[in-house]
Amino acid sequence: MQIDRIGDLDFKVADLSLADFGRKEISLAEHEMPGMMALRREYSEVRPLAGARISGSLHMTVQTAVLIETLVDLGADVRWASCNIFSTQDHAAAAVVIGRNGTPENPTGVPVFAWKGETLPEYWWCTDRMLRWPNAADGSVQGPNMLLDDGGDATLLIHKGVQYEKAGVVPALSEEDADYTEEYSVILDLLRASLSDDPQYWTTTSPSIIGVTEETTTGVNRLYQLAAAGELLFPAINVNDSVTKSKFDNKYGIRHSLVDGINRAVDVLIGGKVALVAGYGDVGKGASESLQGQGARVIIAEADPICALQALMDGYEVATVESAVERADLIITTTGNKDIIGVDHMRRMKHQAILGNIGHFDNEIDMAGLARSGASRIEIKPQVDEWRFPDGHTVIVLSEGRLLNLGNATGHPSFVMSASFSNQVIAQIELFTKPDSWDKEVYRLPKSLDEKVARIHVEALGGELTQLTKDQAEYIGVDVEGPFKPEHYRY
Amino acid sequence: MQIDRIGDLDFKVADLSLADFGRKEISLAEHEMPGMMALRREYSEVRPLAGARISGSLHMTVQTAVLIETLVDLGADVRWASCNIFSTQDHAAAAVVIGRNGTPENPTGVPVFAWKGETLPEYWWCTDRMLRWPNAADGSVQGPNMLLDDGGDATLLIHKGVQYEKAGVVPALSEEDADYTEEYSVILDLLRASLSDDPQYWTTTSPSIIGVTEETTTGVNRLYQLAAAGELLFPAINVNDSVTKSKFDNKYGIRHSLVDGINRAVDVLIGGKVALVAGYGDVGKGASESLQGQGARVIIAEADPICALQALMDGYEVATVESAVERADLIITTTGNKDIIGVDHMRRMKHQAILGNIGHFDNEIDMAGLARSGASRIEIKPQVDEWRFPDGHTVIVLSEGRLLNLGNATGHPSFVMSASFSNQVIAQIELFTKPDSWDKEVYRLPKSLDEKVARIHVEALGGELTQLTKDQAEYIGVDVEGPFKPEHYRY
Ligand SMILES: NC(=O)c1ccc[n+]([C@@H]2O[C@H](COP(=O)([O-])OP(=O)(O)OC[C@H]3O[C@@H](n4cnc5c(N)ncnc54)[C@H](O)[C@@H]3O)[C@@H](O)[C@H]2O)c1
Ligand SMILES: NC(=O)c1ccc[n+]([C@@H]2O[C@H](COP(=O)([O-])OP(=O)(O)OC[C@H]3O[C@@H](n4cnc5c(N)ncnc54)[C@H](O)[C@@H]3O)[C@@H](O)[C@H]2O)c1
Repeated sequence: MQIDRIGDLDFKVADLSLADFGRKEISLAEHEMPGMMALRREYSEVRPLAGARISGSLHMTVQTAVLIETLVDLGADVRWASCNIFSTQDHAAAAVVIGRNGTPENPTGVPVFAWKGETLPEYWWCTDRMLRWPNAADGSVQGPNMLLDDGGDATLLIHKGVQYEKAGVVPALSEEDADYTEEYSVILDLLRASLSDDPQYWTTTSPSIIGVTEETTTGVNRLYQLAAAGELLFPAINVNDSVTKSKFDNKYGIRHSLVDGINRAVDVLIGGKVALVAGYGDVGKGASESLQGQGARVIIAEADPICALQALMDGYEVATVESAVERADLIITTTGNKDIIGVDHMRRMKHQAILGNIGHFDNEIDMAGLARSGASRIEIKPQVDEWRFPDGHTVIVLSEGRLLNLGNATGHPSFVMSASFSNQVIAQIELFTKPDSWDKEVYRLPKSLDEKVARIHVEALGGELTQLTKDQAEYIGVDVEGPFKPEHYRY
Repeated sequence: MQIDRIGDLDFKVADLSLADFGRKEISLAEHEMPGMMALRREYSEVRPLAGARISGSLHMTVQTAVLIETLVDLGADVRWASCNIFSTQDHAAAAVVIGRNGTPENPTGVPVFAWKGETLPEYWWCTDRMLRWPNAADGSVQGPNMLLDDGGDATLLIHKGVQYEKAGVVPALSEEDADYTEEYSVILDLLRASLSDDPQYWTTTSPSIIGVTEETTTGVNRLYQLAAAGELLFPAINVNDSVTKSKFDNKYGIRHSLVDGINRAVDVLIGGKVALVAGYGDVGKGASESLQGQGARVIIAEADPICALQALMDGYEVATVESAVERADLIITTTGNKDIIGVDHMRRMKHQAILGNIGHFDNEIDMAGLARSGASRIEIKPQVDEWRFPDGHTVIVLSEGRLLNLGNATGHPSFVMSASFSNQVIAQIELFTKPDSWDKEVYRLPKSLDEKVARIHVEALGGELTQLTKDQAEYIGVDVEGPFKPEHYRY
């Protein structure tokens, strides 16, 4: 792989000539992202992130471009990669590299390493580049001092790097090993190269990291597991569990972007069909509403009895994948768990059943098993494959099992990402400006900040908030300005 | 007031001859309350509540009858009152007094003090009777050793009783006092009589109380305020904030019972009308869905920007009562707060606008102000009044501003109450069987018990739960048997 370089700027994107189109869409998005604009107004004079070197791993979309440029306006230096091989919008990536005042000859934007359709080695190369900063003024090797992660791949790479540098060796991994996946072997190859190049790179650079802010359920899950094992190398803020993130992005964002992804992929009428949705968490709730809104009959597979009872109360049948898979025209996984749809399920699916995942990682569907199964792949168009089984029936797989809203469409729309990313920016400010307030644990943002994010977006939609009187506030035991609910409140 | 007595049983209900009808509806309800039946099966041999003297203050409905008889099957002695003047179902009250094996001549049930349409002095007299147990074998005065409360009136009476016995006097309250309400002056009269009768009654009996289990948001709110002030006299379990309570009863229960109450009251087509709902918490969410499901255009008034943003995302307009009240055909309060609808709002309402409250207390609507306003009251039928303003326009007020689902209809249906009451029974067992595990604080039930309640109800609805493999459970960091989510998860 070859880094591109113009002047001081290193980057790797698909095509810089797409930058104009990217810039136009970024400026439309800015209007739809009132949270980002409000934070720019509030903080661009103070520049609370001056001195921050933020390495970001998050879908390189138009909305993310607005996030990146907000971080820059708040004073940060930024490097970026996508957190998925299919989720980059190449025009957005190009525009971010060129920057708001740059030109193709003299780009003044941010180093981005991302393009749509990376191979796995390319993907991890991009992640690695995004974490390696140009040397410091004194010539010493530099990493980031802040991380912004979505799904935890950047965090993972650093933790594995430190672990293997301590061991002095990166283990060999053969296809026979229990934890073998193609992706994991790519990661190990990369770390092996790094170890031979600079045996202390991750060990030297990671202590500068003040902390990470993590975007999504799956990444947060990994962080809690690291923290529980006492292995977390730096503090983390769980952005996902801000109410204005998980109860908005994961639910209303998916409600928008699931059908959008399916429509752009296959143009199949959803009304009247039977859809099987695995998982009825926040994403599953949004997914089901999305499909039901189009007239599908939705069946839910759930492991958690509370979520299953919610699904029943919302009018959905609850059944196992095992028992419902033959009835379904669409099968969507949203669990954040692995091994939800196996090849045996695919064998039993209806002809031309549509199979997609909208959870963070592609391990919800056994794509490796499908490749080995004897089924043959017919590429209909990028990110849409028809797999024909020996008996002749086919299954249409979206985005090779990766999150289809970002693979087949453009992900969540700007407004919902404005709420999510407001939490990201606030979390970055909290961590960076109070570096001594955190242990190596996972924190959530205080409710007052969550309410602040909500307030901006209510106002942008023309909603009129009710002001409590002092007497009313006392009666329900809150302050007139909030927070309005106890910590355990569920919304 | 005269207590009725047959043999050893003291009670006061409307009409014992309604017991047969009550018993028939109780037996229909039992089938719809799988949680109650499962707890009877699990515990009626062990009798974990043997020795418990439970004083209960909770709407005396058919569903509550099933709760009471479950507590009895688990070994408890029980006394009961309703927690609202209009919510008693007289046939249910009669059946509970007669008991499953009793006759009108020889009732063998539970002492109940409740009838539909109590006056405020009658209501508080009932609450007081329910808290006074027949003397112990040694002749000494007895109170309950367990409380089961809904809205906190029983808890309030005991706390005020202890407070004024300490002071040695119950203050006089005149209509000029800031905290004057008719109801509060009734409470003080009752406590004044108690003080002169036995100046240490509440002080002597309250220390035997192991704890209280509280059903609803408003009661829980009071408990947290008492605990914060260091004034809580005994431990409390917050049943409301079990997920299988607040996210089911408050939401799906209200979705069912709000339109039910409106229909039984006024038979007005809801479709096409504009409904203004104050509050978009759990109850407000259920209320809005209920009205929208009937084709109303719903406007939400909210103080909390997070809930307001949820309302917007769910497709509702968000406005203040002030600005929307003239457009509304129906106005429903769900805030658990006071002074939401004042007389000035009523003056500005449409002719024959329908005004009702479904929050716990009647202070959401200024009924006292309405009575003083010069508007005249025309009773259409019990719990439905048309109030005519001097300008000729009228407002139809349901249940005199008290919770209309219980005043105008029969409250929540059995299935949802099965989930709520399962949490109540489990909370009673937890408190009573582990009396030394609690401080004078407010606790919630562990998630495992919440999931247990959900599981019973999923199975009753024929839902098929997915069983995680060990590998999957490890991957998401949970046990195969649950709990399936971190404490902060919001569902
Ligand atoms: N595509 C996107 O734009 C996007 C956006 C937000 C989140 N996500 C990702 O979506 C996934 C789900 O996120 P969430 O916030 O809904 O998480 P969640 O924890 O709220 O929901 C996941 C649900 O799946 C259930 N589940 C787990 N294993 C299961 C199994 N084997 N069978 C059936 N059900 C099972 C869980 O009980 C849970 O209720 C995560 O990977 C998250 O990172 C994707
Ligand atoms: N009728 C029933 O059967 C029934 C059942 C359950 C609960 N309840 C009662 O309903 C009430 C609400 O319960 P909940 O669980 O929804 O509580 P909640 O706290 O979830 O919701 C109340 C909402 O009202 C909002 N609010 C407060 N003051 C306001 C104001 N002045 N203007 C506009 N909005 C305001 C709050 O921000 C909150 O979002 C409580 O009194 C509860 O005890 C009644």
